[in-house]
Amino acid sequence: MGKRRYLILAPDHFVNDAKTAHGVIRYGKDETVAVVDRSCAGSSVQKVLPHLRSDAPIVASVSEGLRYHPNTLLIGTAPQGGKLPAQWRRDVLTALEAGLDLVSGLHDMLAEDAEFVRAAHAHGARIWDVRKPPLVPLFSGAVYAVRAPVLLAVGNDCNVGKMTVMIELANAAAAAGTTAEFVPTGQTGIMIAGWGIAVDRVISDFTTGACERLVLQADARHPRYVLVEGQGSINHPAYAPVTLALLFGCAPDALILVAAPRRKHIEAFETPTLSYMELIEIHETLCATVKPAKVVGIALNTNGLSETQAHDEIERARSETGLPADDVVRLGATDLWHAIQPQLIKREPLRSCVPA
Amino acid sequence: MGKRRYLILAPDHFVNDAKTAHGVIRYGKDETVAVVDRSCAGSSVQKVLPHLRSDAPIVASVSEGLRYHPNTLLIGTAPQGGKLPAQWRRDVLTALEAGLDLVSGLHDMLAEDAEFVRAAHAHGARIWDVRKPPLVPLFSGAVYAVRAPVLLAVGNDCNVGKMTVMIELANAAAAAGTTAEFVPTGQTGIMIAGWGIAVDRVISDFTTGACERLVLQADARHPRYVLVEGQGSINHPAYAPVTLALLFGCAPDALILVAAPRRKHIEAFETPTLSYMELIEIHETLCATVKPAKVVGIALNTNGLSETQAHDEIERARSETGLPADDVVRLGATDLWHAIQPQLIKREPLRSCVPA
Repeated sequence: MGKRRYLILAPDHFVNDAKTAHGVIRYGKDETVAVVDRSCAGSSVQKVLPHLRSDAPIVASVSEGLRYHPNTLLIGTAPQGGKLPAQWRRDVLTALEAGLDLVSGLHDMLAEDAEFVRAAHAHGARIWDVRKPPLVPLFSGAVYAVRAPVLLAVGNDCNVGKMTVMIELANAAAAAGTTAEFVPTGQTGIMIAGWGIAVDRVISDFTTGACERLVLQADARHPRYVLVEGQGSINHPAYAPVTLALLFGCAPDALILVAAPRRKHIEAFETPTLSYMELIEIHETLCATVKPAKVVGIALNTNGLSETQAHDEIERARSETGLPADDVVRLGATDLWHAIQPQLIKREPLRSCVPA
Repeated sequence: MGKRRYLILAPDHFVNDAKTAHGVIRYGKDETVAVVDRSCAGSSVQKVLPHLRSDAPIVASVSEGLRYHPNTLLIGTAPQGGKLPAQWRRDVLTALEAGLDLVSGLHDMLAEDAEFVRAAHAHGARIWDVRKPPLVPLFSGAVYAVRAPVLLAVGNDCNVGKMTVMIELANAAAAAGTTAEFVPTGQTGIMIAGWGIAVDRVISDFTTGACERLVLQADARHPRYVLVEGQGSINHPAYAPVTLALLFGCAPDALILVAAPRRKHIEAFETPTLSYMELIEIHETLCATVKPAKVVGIALNTNGLSETQAHDEIERARSETGLPADDVVRLGATDLWHAIQPQLIKREPLRSCVPA
């Protein structure tokens, strides 16, 4: 497939609840030619979300978006449970009937929807379900032999910016003259990087095997460092198992803690978020049972805070933990990258002293 | 389906590597009429594994087993990765062609195998893939409102007897005049109890939802207690995510630690097993971040040890932890049940102090 020209579908959700759209617009290699969201139609991405650095127009319908010559429709939101809202079917069909390819990160597999498949076939369109995982083997321990030090992002909640932090750090590493391979583990990361596995979609027994395979694939490109996008949070009542799959399956040598500093509870649950020290302790304790790894830095998401508040939160993170802390979106990733790089050293897994 | 009469297929693995066969023979409500294992053909279950309390004969082939009038072929082993060994296909076809139903706990879905489906259809046989999970919703927190206290088994490794301990405790509870609903979370437990979900087969994002649903289903039968079969181990490099899914998704009020006391490393990995105190600490720390639960007792698997060694290990567990400890297979579950029952009290999840 050549260069994609995306029309992004995010009805009524573009500004507040479309992290897939935001990630692809900000970091993707392909161009976004327009966004479909009737609630802010007539405006532009530049006007409603200037930090995304795109002047794509926002339009009211897919038909209207066709005017900007897209070749691909991208589903720009990730609703809870990953289902396609029924009222979006007409939009998807309109795009397929216009010959646009379809890229989706939903749990619903659109390439298994008979009506979509017929429309795609009739108009020469292709459907890419980004979240559909390949068959992977069980975890084998092969990951313990990768050469590049592996840095994994962990977080105090979902949706705090773990992917963004790892992309920004990889870019900072490149700017500093070294190589760091970004490893996508969720749908948005996969759309941006063009490869990866949506670990949350893998059959539970095989999640650590999927993580292992991703790190092996990244290492095979011989980067100096491997930077893995994290998922969920270790005390997320629903998604912690995915977090633990990354923690054991990627066999990281170091962790970076990504946190929204004023978030009080996990997503829609009443479960309290943990303090920085509690988060460091619980991740390091778990890693210590298989392959030791330390938290080497903290990346804060101070989105919504004033300059002073952001500065205060960064200072608080530093003083509470004694670790380098920063907001890589607000202040750039160069400083944090240079602060953590010396800590990215290859480590060994534990071995039991069983006579062979 | 009426009463099943099982022919159990366990070629060359019946004695040492057929925990599904052993569990179904020992605890299942259906009768096992014969076992297929050429390596010990001519013997009987009674002779090779007396603790299973069955006088079923062991035969060399499925054809020979038909003499005992089975109505169902059960795949009696759970090979790594859950694949059907190619050399077993002929046996499975012979059974289907004789009109036997097929029960399988493999990851390979036999009801999706075209050759098996044709044979089953032609001879009126049915195929039950025990491990195939239903569609389940995401975790919602509804499990926090169940009425019965929930006891979950955790272990120092896979394959230490977590299912057996929970069935024995449920039986001891019944003998003591109360009701305890056993919740199966793996293929053998499902075959024994006739319901349940193989959590290791569920898509990662939905594993906690599957656990929640199982506990809700058990609680809907109004038992005094809910006893959940555990899976894996919290520091198992490959399967720990399944363990954590049970720990958060079942929202247990108490934990029972099941351990093989002299196991030094996790399954085929070099990862060392944890000490009792390390295991207690790590499970209680994780639970404390969502809904607190304590380890209330230790069930040891002293299989292979002498009477004296077993006694010593039970004493060591008691003195290292201060908790009630016993081997419920060797010594019966009555004592352990009475020791832990007072600790099975309903507990509340954490709530963050966010103004509504």
